[in-house]
Amino acid sequence: MTIFSKIIAGEIPSYKIAENDRFLAFLDVYPLVEGHVLVIPKIETDNLFDLDDSYLSEILVFAKPVAKAIEKAFRCNRCGISVIGIEVPHTHVHLIPINTANDLNFTRGKLNMSKEELKTVQEKILLAMEK
Amino acid sequence: MTIFSKIIAGEIPSYKIAENDRFLAFLDVYPLVEGHVLVIPKIETDNLFDLDDSYLSEILVFAKPVAKAIEKAFRCNRCGISVIGIEVPHTHVHLIPINTANDLNFTRGKLNMSKEELKTVQEKILLAMEK
Repeated sequence: MTIFSKIIAGEIPSYKIAENDRFLAFLDVYPLVEGHVLVIPKIETDNLFDLDDSYLSEILVFAKPVAKAIEKAFRCNRCGISVIGIEVPHTHVHLIPINTANDLNFTRGKLNMSKEELKTVQEKILLAMEK
Repeated sequence: MTIFSKIIAGEIPSYKIAENDRFLAFLDVYPLVEGHVLVIPKIETDNLFDLDDSYLSEILVFAKPVAKAIEKAFRCNRCGISVIGIEVPHTHVHLIPINTANDLNFTRGKLNMSKEELKTVQEKILLAMEK
């Protein structure tokens, strides 16, 4: 069972942003920048391109309102996307507010954010989604 | 008219990989690594998340056989995805064969490939798509 499946099952707490029957969006607790969100399918598939077409066709549509909220909540040029997935064998789409290509550079160090800071980021995104 | 619209219109030549009525896949001529492909919608939209849901739901399904061919044609862990898009205001999905996160790091220098080398890359991907 991957760490993401444990998050889906509620065995590990997360800062949830959005959820439906097939996908979950929540904060990356080791963010590259503030506002870094992960979108995952609720099935354990290592490689995004091994998802069947029904998941592939829904994942960006599910991500869209989350991305739009990230764009509203954080000063950025736009919400960028990255799918790497070498570390956790459960495909995940990184949604990240970017101003430069370096904001999507995963070789950089991650931010060290406290629980309170993460909670604040979660609230900012949720508030932007409501608007 | 963006450089990508000129490629779609055939005014600028490209190394095509796949095409349908709504999307085009072709080689990035300034690749991060060998096998770097761009997928674009045939409409000029700057931000991926401003595409309407019909495009958003089809783009990864269109990209899937291209990604699978890239995975077959090049020694890699998988085909990664990046959407940045700050430089050209016509959304484009980067498909890149990756082994480490650094293979998706756009702050690195690009490869300088000759037309012959690009043609060889195109042929390798097209051959892998046929199999």
